[in-house]
Amino acid sequence: MTTASYEHRRVGVAGSALREALAAGRLVRSAGAHDGLSARIAEQAGFDAVWASGLEISAAHGLPDVSLLGLAEYLAAAVAIRRSVDIPVVADCDTGFGGNLNAAYAMMRYEEAGVAGICIEDKLFPKRNSFVKSGQQLLEMAEFCRKLEVTKAAQSHSDTVLIARTEAFICGMPLPEALRRCHHYVDAGADAVLVHSRKPDSNEIISFMRQWDNRAPVVVVPTTYTAFSVDEARAAGVAMVIYANQGMRAAITAMRQAWATVIAEGSAASLELRIASVKDVFALSGMDRWLEKDR
Amino acid sequence: MTTASYEHRRVGVAGSALREALAAGRLVRSAGAHDGLSARIAEQAGFDAVWASGLEISAAHGLPDVSLLGLAEYLAAAVAIRRSVDIPVVADCDTGFGGNLNAAYAMMRYEEAGVAGICIEDKLFPKRNSFVKSGQQLLEMAEFCRKLEVTKAAQSHSDTVLIARTEAFICGMPLPEALRRCHHYVDAGADAVLVHSRKPDSNEIISFMRQWDNRAPVVVVPTTYTAFSVDEARAAGVAMVIYANQGMRAAITAMRQAWATVIAEGSAASLELRIASVKDVFALSGMDRWLEKDR
Amino acid sequence: MTTASYEHRRVGVAGSALREALAAGRLVRSAGAHDGLSARIAEQAGFDAVWASGLEISAAHGLPDVSLLGLAEYLAAAVAIRRSVDIPVVADCDTGFGGNLNAAYAMMRYEEAGVAGICIEDKLFPKRNSFVKSGQQLLEMAEFCRKLEVTKAAQSHSDTVLIARTEAFICGMPLPEALRRCHHYVDAGADAVLVHSRKPDSNEIISFMRQWDNRAPVVVVPTTYTAFSVDEARAAGVAMVIYANQGMRAAITAMRQAWATVIAEGSAASLELRIASVKDVFALSGMDRWLEKDR
Amino acid sequence: MTTASYEHRRVGVAGSALREALAAGRLVRSAGAHDGLSARIAEQAGFDAVWASGLEISAAHGLPDVSLLGLAEYLAAAVAIRRSVDIPVVADCDTGFGGNLNAAYAMMRYEEAGVAGICIEDKLFPKRNSFVKSGQQLLEMAEFCRKLEVTKAAQSHSDTVLIARTEAFICGMPLPEALRRCHHYVDAGADAVLVHSRKPDSNEIISFMRQWDNRAPVVVVPTTYTAFSVDEARAAGVAMVIYANQGMRAAITAMRQAWATVIAEGSAASLELRIASVKDVFALSGMDRWLEKDR
Repeated sequence: MTTASYEHRRVGVAGSALREALAAGRLVRSAGAHDGLSARIAEQAGFDAVWASGLEISAAHGLPDVSLLGLAEYLAAAVAIRRSVDIPVVADCDTGFGGNLNAAYAMMRYEEAGVAGICIEDKLFPKRNSFVKSGQQLLEMAEFCRKLEVTKAAQSHSDTVLIARTEAFICGMPLPEALRRCHHYVDAGADAVLVHSRKPDSNEIISFMRQWDNRAPVVVVPTTYTAFSVDEARAAGVAMVIYANQGMRAAITAMRQAWATVIAEGSAASLELRIASVKDVFALSGMDRWLEKDR
Repeated sequence: MTTASYEHRRVGVAGSALREALAAGRLVRSAGAHDGLSARIAEQAGFDAVWASGLEISAAHGLPDVSLLGLAEYLAAAVAIRRSVDIPVVADCDTGFGGNLNAAYAMMRYEEAGVAGICIEDKLFPKRNSFVKSGQQLLEMAEFCRKLEVTKAAQSHSDTVLIARTEAFICGMPLPEALRRCHHYVDAGADAVLVHSRKPDSNEIISFMRQWDNRAPVVVVPTTYTAFSVDEARAAGVAMVIYANQGMRAAITAMRQAWATVIAEGSAASLELRIASVKDVFALSGMDRWLEKDR
Repeated sequence: MTTASYEHRRVGVAGSALREALAAGRLVRSAGAHDGLSARIAEQAGFDAVWASGLEISAAHGLPDVSLLGLAEYLAAAVAIRRSVDIPVVADCDTGFGGNLNAAYAMMRYEEAGVAGICIEDKLFPKRNSFVKSGQQLLEMAEFCRKLEVTKAAQSHSDTVLIARTEAFICGMPLPEALRRCHHYVDAGADAVLVHSRKPDSNEIISFMRQWDNRAPVVVVPTTYTAFSVDEARAAGVAMVIYANQGMRAAITAMRQAWATVIAEGSAASLELRIASVKDVFALSGMDRWLEKDR
Repeated sequence: MTTASYEHRRVGVAGSALREALAAGRLVRSAGAHDGLSARIAEQAGFDAVWASGLEISAAHGLPDVSLLGLAEYLAAAVAIRRSVDIPVVADCDTGFGGNLNAAYAMMRYEEAGVAGICIEDKLFPKRNSFVKSGQQLLEMAEFCRKLEVTKAAQSHSDTVLIARTEAFICGMPLPEALRRCHHYVDAGADAVLVHSRKPDSNEIISFMRQWDNRAPVVVVPTTYTAFSVDEARAAGVAMVIYANQGMRAAITAMRQAWATVIAEGSAASLELRIASVKDVFALSGMDRWLEKDR
């Protein structure tokens, strides 16, 4: 571990790595995280980037993903994540936490925090999670373009990546509207677009990719169309695949089973055999490296 | 869910519930947690209380449990936990974050936050996690008694529980010293004692319980002596058993396996079948209850 | 200083004091503050309540009052204020930090923090400070009434005061609209109304008071109509007068003069004679009381 | 205001400016601050650097300067300060918030935040403010040297300045001990030393400077020996003079007088004439610059 590691990383380096990856056309695989530990586990598993997930951060606070938390809480989680990994961090910024100036302010704060990219979406603030059936409302396209421009103008590091996320499909709009919006978003300064879909298959995404013609990098989040593989993504020309919340969902199931075992068996004896050791927690949290600093 | 639920709980209520449970001689089973989600899962599993674990909170930040984080970060985690559950929350306060006034200040802040009890331990600040082999150093007994007195004097709600944790066994001291310290700690104002042991069996704890003669409630943390069951604990007269970190350790293993699957298989398809659903995350985070507020 | 002092105050007590004062028809004089120190100075000067001012909190962060900061930062300032005084704290919550659920969430968090009352206003989020000439936009009355209802329903302590602030005059609306809105706001659950005006005299306020006929307590903020005295306010039937930012403005002038002196004279010698002593800072920050805790 | 302004400053730039100023032998005049506003006022007055003062930050929280607040609160204040000015920020880190690793961790967090330099002192943690008469205790010199080494090793930007502060004079030690300590501190890696004195005249400082022979830059804090001028400081070879708390002390007096006026006169009318205007607050907080971003 050199002094150029995550604990000391200079602002801008991460943005550069993300931008290069996108430019090189390598498929970037991103894992959702909500704290330093979940991010570090994703990095160790081999992911190329971490997605500071709004759903996960809200759920970690015991709150639903409906814009109850603001920039402060999202940023704090992203900072803990960024400090814990060497791979680039992309921050899910929902709608940018309000209006144009809020999005611009978010850009400044995330850049300052060493985050490689931020993603803002074209729904009304306050927003609801995309998988909530009711209440999905798009912002006027021109207004979102303006938000992108103002946000882009607040950017200071040339490598930072601004991702414009369209919820057109989520809000029941057809492909042409999704395409039209994304083209305008790139015109307005977006470095990449995230096209969200909650269909059980990847048809919406595949159709989009065909007509998009590689105008700018495309990010996808196959939460419902889980069969969509990285090979298919590459073939379709996708630039980044985000597995946005599977880590937390696996953790939920595991914690439930663990505690059910303890309650049922009256001890943690059998559980001990199938969970990470305390030593493992030490290793993940850098115990030896830290104690070494004062030896 | 009534308006008297966790989201609205008045300060003092939780302390009362914990105190009553300890007074009633019911064995209190506590689960370690580090955020709102992990606490809520523990509550739903049937635990009686939540332990806001220093090891877990540190690890969640990507940091080792060696006093790098202070009251602010520990308290923020405890607040998120307290807001997410109806059962009492007991806060692991390490050594009290410094000297006597730091511990007193911590008492004031945790009480204000509606935490039912706090636990401070008799090691030197900054401390190392008890399972680190080297560098375990006890504070002079008289000094820790003074810390307890100052902390107790800062308490304002009569129901709040102050737990004095002795690391005598962790530091290689014999039973008489553990007993002597605990008696003095109760004299100094502790409402309960936590006797920590890192032996593979419960002999240290059993010996302690025999000679302690139920002078005050005893809390144990069977992290290494995992076979120690709640029935044995009850028989020995233990008041509270804390499963301090098994939830996070189960989550670590699950996240590792989940991400390994995604990397290996190139999609989350097979994973989907064995992890909590997004709907599940919504339920855990109170989505419907919140949307209901504005319908 | 008893244990029932500000440092230990139970939630609800402050709300009760504010509600009683409003019910008793005593004119409540409130002073704006942005941190614990400025609040304590206001309390010592004899004010009845503290206004956790959005303008001041933003300015203290070096930011303009245009909704860049969110609930987290506003709440943190209100908490520092509440911890520092025994008089009730009323929190300026702008528009409630977004939509209806954001306002409801704010109510929960401020009540939890022991704040006596919160004030939300009927402008669009994100809002601009009322003294900015351009861009003042009212929310539809029905929408704001709904916001008040949802916020009120989230209240758990019966004594907490919900103040509805109308920016009707600020947005150039005539008296009837201000009155109509305020009546509906009280119908929707507001415990008091704040009628804001930026006229150089108190005519708008006086006219309002005449026709309002004491339906519910009225709060005024004589920032521009500075000649409006507490005697006139009492005569007009006003319940609370907020001097929202004069403390900070006095501090700005004093800090400018102090630093100009040091730069000009090359030392702080002459300055020393006209500023508070270090001993004074100790007294204000409770140095002796704290050291006493560990003597 | 260019995009290279304080709102966007890259980490490292500030450190470089401070290091150059110290190397150039220009006397650096620093003003104490506790939030963004107080820092910006100091910058506009012509100061070369800002001192994020522990006394001020504690007092702003309504707390005495006895290590009750930790890194989190100190850092948050330093961040607000750093975001508000273009001149370098030097952070008062007391004893480093605990042991060697705490000081190292502080170095990492402050560097990440773009702070130009940090200062740690050779007293025991928890410390008391240097102007408290009782309870001033020095750390063993060798232990503090080790703390400096560990802290220095955690530094990643070559321009960051580590200032070692000796409280030898504060603790009643004679000149040779102050000198001995400072030489060892420089050997251990300190880039500068801060020699604190609470004598009514500058004799201690002058004597120190004579024998120090310009081994490394010296920082002084003439809080009690107020007559000590920048000309004398330059003549004595001092590198930096910190006016650590005069701004806040002037603000206290002004706020007291302002509120006394309002209470006595029943209005803010006469006050209005001698305090900064709301427009002034807007200017200080960047209102126009921000509104311009979305025009």
